[in-house]
Amino acid sequence: MTKEFGIGMIGYKFMGKAHSHAYRDLPMFFPQVARPVMRAICGRDAEGVAQAARQFGWESFETDWRKLLERDDIDLIDINAPSDAHKDIALAAAAAGKHVFCEKPLALTLADSREMLQAVEAAGVKHMVGFNYRFAPAVQLAKKLVEDGRLGQIYHFRAWFLQDWIVDPEFPLVWRLQKEIAGSGSHGDLGAHLIDLAHFLVGDMQEVIGMSETFIKERPVPSSMTGLSAKGSKDAPKGPVTVDDATLFLTRFANGALGSFEATRFAPGHRCTNSFEINGSKGSVKFDFERMNELQVYFTDDAEDVQGFRRVLATDPAHAYAEAWWPPGHTIGYEHTFIHETVELMQALAEDRQPVPNFHDGVKCQQVLEAVDLSIEQRRWVRIEEL
Amino acid sequence: MTKEFGIGMIGYKFMGKAHSHAYRDLPMFFPQVARPVMRAICGRDAEGVAQAARQFGWESFETDWRKLLERDDIDLIDINAPSDAHKDIALAAAAAGKHVFCEKPLALTLADSREMLQAVEAAGVKHMVGFNYRFAPAVQLAKKLVEDGRLGQIYHFRAWFLQDWIVDPEFPLVWRLQKEIAGSGSHGDLGAHLIDLAHFLVGDMQEVIGMSETFIKERPVPSSMTGLSAKGSKDAPKGPVTVDDATLFLTRFANGALGSFEATRFAPGHRCTNSFEINGSKGSVKFDFERMNELQVYFTDDAEDVQGFRRVLATDPAHAYAEAWWPPGHTIGYEHTFIHETVELMQALAEDRQPVPNFHDGVKCQQVLEAVDLSIEQRRWVRIEEL
Amino acid sequence: MTKEFGIGMIGYKFMGKAHSHAYRDLPMFFPQVARPVMRAICGRDAEGVAQAARQFGWESFETDWRKLLERDDIDLIDINAPSDAHKDIALAAAAAGKHVFCEKPLALTLADSREMLQAVEAAGVKHMVGFNYRFAPAVQLAKKLVEDGRLGQIYHFRAWFLQDWIVDPEFPLVWRLQKEIAGSGSHGDLGAHLIDLAHFLVGDMQEVIGMSETFIKERPVPSSMTGLSAKGSKDAPKGPVTVDDATLFLTRFANGALGSFEATRFAPGHRCTNSFEINGSKGSVKFDFERMNELQVYFTDDAEDVQGFRRVLATDPAHAYAEAWWPPGHTIGYEHTFIHETVELMQALAEDRQPVPNFHDGVKCQQVLEAVDLSIEQRRWVRIEEL
Amino acid sequence: MTKEFGIGMIGYKFMGKAHSHAYRDLPMFFPQVARPVMRAICGRDAEGVAQAARQFGWESFETDWRKLLERDDIDLIDINAPSDAHKDIALAAAAAGKHVFCEKPLALTLADSREMLQAVEAAGVKHMVGFNYRFAPAVQLAKKLVEDGRLGQIYHFRAWFLQDWIVDPEFPLVWRLQKEIAGSGSHGDLGAHLIDLAHFLVGDMQEVIGMSETFIKERPVPSSMTGLSAKGSKDAPKGPVTVDDATLFLTRFANGALGSFEATRFAPGHRCTNSFEINGSKGSVKFDFERMNELQVYFTDDAEDVQGFRRVLATDPAHAYAEAWWPPGHTIGYEHTFIHETVELMQALAEDRQPVPNFHDGVKCQQVLEAVDLSIEQRRWVRIEEL
Repeated sequence: MTKEFGIGMIGYKFMGKAHSHAYRDLPMFFPQVARPVMRAICGRDAEGVAQAARQFGWESFETDWRKLLERDDIDLIDINAPSDAHKDIALAAAAAGKHVFCEKPLALTLADSREMLQAVEAAGVKHMVGFNYRFAPAVQLAKKLVEDGRLGQIYHFRAWFLQDWIVDPEFPLVWRLQKEIAGSGSHGDLGAHLIDLAHFLVGDMQEVIGMSETFIKERPVPSSMTGLSAKGSKDAPKGPVTVDDATLFLTRFANGALGSFEATRFAPGHRCTNSFEINGSKGSVKFDFERMNELQVYFTDDAEDVQGFRRVLATDPAHAYAEAWWPPGHTIGYEHTFIHETVELMQALAEDRQPVPNFHDGVKCQQVLEAVDLSIEQRRWVRIEEL
Repeated sequence: MTKEFGIGMIGYKFMGKAHSHAYRDLPMFFPQVARPVMRAICGRDAEGVAQAARQFGWESFETDWRKLLERDDIDLIDINAPSDAHKDIALAAAAAGKHVFCEKPLALTLADSREMLQAVEAAGVKHMVGFNYRFAPAVQLAKKLVEDGRLGQIYHFRAWFLQDWIVDPEFPLVWRLQKEIAGSGSHGDLGAHLIDLAHFLVGDMQEVIGMSETFIKERPVPSSMTGLSAKGSKDAPKGPVTVDDATLFLTRFANGALGSFEATRFAPGHRCTNSFEINGSKGSVKFDFERMNELQVYFTDDAEDVQGFRRVLATDPAHAYAEAWWPPGHTIGYEHTFIHETVELMQALAEDRQPVPNFHDGVKCQQVLEAVDLSIEQRRWVRIEEL
Repeated sequence: MTKEFGIGMIGYKFMGKAHSHAYRDLPMFFPQVARPVMRAICGRDAEGVAQAARQFGWESFETDWRKLLERDDIDLIDINAPSDAHKDIALAAAAAGKHVFCEKPLALTLADSREMLQAVEAAGVKHMVGFNYRFAPAVQLAKKLVEDGRLGQIYHFRAWFLQDWIVDPEFPLVWRLQKEIAGSGSHGDLGAHLIDLAHFLVGDMQEVIGMSETFIKERPVPSSMTGLSAKGSKDAPKGPVTVDDATLFLTRFANGALGSFEATRFAPGHRCTNSFEINGSKGSVKFDFERMNELQVYFTDDAEDVQGFRRVLATDPAHAYAEAWWPPGHTIGYEHTFIHETVELMQALAEDRQPVPNFHDGVKCQQVLEAVDLSIEQRRWVRIEEL
Repeated sequence: MTKEFGIGMIGYKFMGKAHSHAYRDLPMFFPQVARPVMRAICGRDAEGVAQAARQFGWESFETDWRKLLERDDIDLIDINAPSDAHKDIALAAAAAGKHVFCEKPLALTLADSREMLQAVEAAGVKHMVGFNYRFAPAVQLAKKLVEDGRLGQIYHFRAWFLQDWIVDPEFPLVWRLQKEIAGSGSHGDLGAHLIDLAHFLVGDMQEVIGMSETFIKERPVPSSMTGLSAKGSKDAPKGPVTVDDATLFLTRFANGALGSFEATRFAPGHRCTNSFEINGSKGSVKFDFERMNELQVYFTDDAEDVQGFRRVLATDPAHAYAEAWWPPGHTIGYEHTFIHETVELMQALAEDRQPVPNFHDGVKCQQVLEAVDLSIEQRRWVRIEEL
């Protein structure tokens, strides 16, 4: 008999839609996994959340997230509200004995994220953080090749997450450009994913040094907004952009590998280039999320006359999650990373173990983010353990 | 108030799963479109179909498809049973006044498909045929560029659908390799999609000439099978492969363009390379389904020093269906072609018009398939109008 | 002691430049090979050829090619005059006991090319034909993989040579668009290269059927022209284009493989896409001349989770000719195919053997070209042996 | 009447071959440019240099480079001996009133390179430094797009030069791995090219911070070596590697752009990936030397539905140097960067102006190299003007 877990979710915009869909699709494509029951969705705007509940398939809705915590039919709280709300909800959820699945970034500060980790551990609940890119089958393949030693000793990790949605200086001042709500800009939004992938694929970092820039210092204040988009006008008053448009940093990993990271929202032509490359003593891999079904793989021990990067389409039965979907060559998309993430979440709940990545990973990511911030502020190398 | 239409579906394997998922996802991502209500799924094996009903989210199931036709709560019959069953079901469904959505190929023969078209027209029901590749946003973009004259006069259409799943001579004799069930091999399975894309993007054909081959003449008879996969053994007795492994043909379009078509299951390294290129007097486009979110686009009037194929990621708001999904750069996959196809189906039902592509397109495709077959048999050019 | 052979060359435009450069570079990069001595270059325009002689590095020049045949210091006649002049020169050269290196196409007709073959064989001289694309290292790698059985049994060869230099209807009526000089259009110019590659890589053909079209029937008559370019004006009188703009054909090879060929000058965005793909029972290769240093290679026996086309950069010591050039990763260009071709020519002269490809290959290519022409004219399959 | 300049060249290995070929080819493809006369080549090994003189086409040879300076028929000294010899030769050449063309890096230290610059300026001779990658037509196109403002304000420059020739720990300790001869490792060899491209394309840097690593600390001492290759054996005694295997650094440009640089010889699968990307307010460009004929170009003002990176093949008449070569689509290779470099050198001599890049550029590059070294040593940001 398949286990079931009641879900209560806070937030119903971009991430809310992605998570809802993952819960909907899970039982169809992974019927052997514990079933999430979509009990209630929560948002402050009653009309908006009611409509979302109907559209996404939730049994009910709430306008006060504290109500979710009181419900016995809810086992797990899924937090994908704006980043500044994560901490309060997570602490309360843990105190209420609910499992917690929180979108990244875990919190606005390292201190907050540590408090959150402490809370879930003290409460003995399960916790997960939404680093969804780990769950692309091509990324899973990269992990497998590293783990199995097929790339040898890792020498170099380079990663770049490039977007271009705010290159236009008239693009309005949405919440993601305001430090008090978003915590940081491209660094926390895009860089955080790269950092987590680095932790996942290479391991811990020792020290970092970074630089950042806000190219457009003021933008029109929008009249309304939703998700990434917003309505504005050229005549609107302008307000200050308080987050970074681009952040770069270098790192040295504990295993001796070198690392380079670039996150920017000012790279025209790149809608969502979330890319990394790993060089090891026996081979290399390359990944680009805009072609997320593919992993480029190179082995130094291929026959001399046919050495070259292989374009592996990670849709074969040999690839993670692929058999649940379509025949080889029939690709999947962005939303599938969330479905696979939910597979891990539900399996962990069913098996009474911590899912991965969890709040430990969220804290580690936040630690690097802040170490980079500190390195920028103090213009010096910062050891991760300083924080 | 959103309209609703009751669906009864026959078949629950590969296509059954794809269609079921489309019906499930439609209301969430296209809430403004009429809602399909998943009334009943039908299959001969009671246990199998019951399990599918639960897993895919159907309200009920049947083991005799005639039962579906008797139900008042079902408005549309979705046929994705093996190809040899299409005709009988479609005729009966039309006679029962049900709308019909039939997977391609419409039937095993042109005569049968014409009979089916006649039946749905006589009954005055809506009909659609499952040429899902039309519904990739990148293909929709190609269509738009052609329609708007941005490629100029079309000179050349080349298309190739390459797969490799039966290259191993020990791969068993599944139903898709048996003429009496599948009608044809790569020609009807893969070539049919190319032909439909040609009709969609370039227009009618005048004449064709083809060639085909069955490279592996005998294969082990499988003990059991499902979808594309099957269990076999090297010691199993062998049976004759009665369909083509590869079929090629040339065509001249009514508008004077030249066409080249290649369909094969013997192209190692190609899991699902469904590709075409169009050359016109003002530009060209290229598509490869393994990178289905992309269209390569070239314009002759670009500035002299920056002429080149543009890799357009069809995930921007300017692209068909894209706004229903994720922000630009966040790709979609194979299954989304079915969801978009279902959007057209439901919209047409709601607007009381014929969806496109419909049985006319299915017949036209079958006509070309048979014209090619005849050209192979008689080793001569065959005019489409001969059939 | 390195042997030396005196060269007399007829023609000094596009091909004349390419050949001259090959003779110049040969001793520097392949010093172990017999040395070509650039004795004399010949052209009808005294001023033009004198200037070419100086610029290209020839010791002397002639304005009457018959003079070349009288010179004792000339061992080999290199013919790259327009195609209609090939035959007379070759016959006379053979009669004079000179070795002959003739650009493709060998002649305007199969009968002529056979007469040329007979002549050089009767005279006992060495002969070569200029199918230079064989000599790209990546093509040599494809040949090696086929020869060594690493692709298994060959099932399919598809080839397309796409250009776009005459898409503009105002492009003038240069000699390459006139049948009496050029013999044919894209078929003989581009298709001939594909046919030779097919012979080289797959083997003999059994039968063919083709189609062709001239999209722009009349063009402005140019006032002057050189190589591929020409000066024209919109007000110039128009003359008829007497060659094909595009020709397609299908073939069945003697070994059972299927073949598809497309040659066109009406493919916008393709400056020089000379491409082929080979599918065999154990693997596939893909080549595109616009990335001529690369061969895409796929093997069916790669480990299950890392199967994919490898992008092999054919610049390693393991690749043909590569060690004569630069370190791995430092690419070569178009002109190098001619240098390598000349390596084969000079080695063959030094070793007193026939170079490959020679007039036999030129005749075979011409035979297929004419078989395709006949198939177009008579609208039927034509067996190669008919001609 | 074309001017002529006598060349005396020191060094006859990898770079010596590349330069010799450039001088040979120049008059054939750029006859309008002043002609280099290959007077004498110089090397310490009489037999080796004599053979090189014959093979490469030099009129004479010397074994003592001071002899070149005494010859009246020599106008320019071309220095491509190992890096530790550059300074002495350049100083003496300037003192002798000879123009100087020096391979990069100009010298082993910034102080030395400044002394060299001072010397050539004091002597009033022309000077050039061998940053050949500037002269790829695709790079020239990038420059033109930046200069003409077609990319808008530059925000970001990222560059990576990846090679893999010393990944094998048994690869021997060649001179390029010894600090006293090579000055530095990947930093000065590969990074120097990236730095120069940054100067060329974006402008001056303000400050830098870097990191580096030597992954393999000891290697077998080779018995003999030439160019990049060497003979060694596993039993050979080992010696210390005294240069960096990989160096990374960040920079802030004077114009506010951010920069990221990575140079490594430990990136399996990358034979010669010399790549950069530039992001500006109006567009982006991407370059990869392994596909050196191509530039990827993106414009923000392309029509909404066809935005995407264009793959421009820089072989059209609109591209720098292209008309001297072959028709569009016929690519060129690595050696052509040297030929184009020599075009600039000869044109500058003929026009009595300084060629570009010259020793000023060499010094600027060295300044950044040392600033990065200092930043690594002192673990802090270093302003370029400190040095």
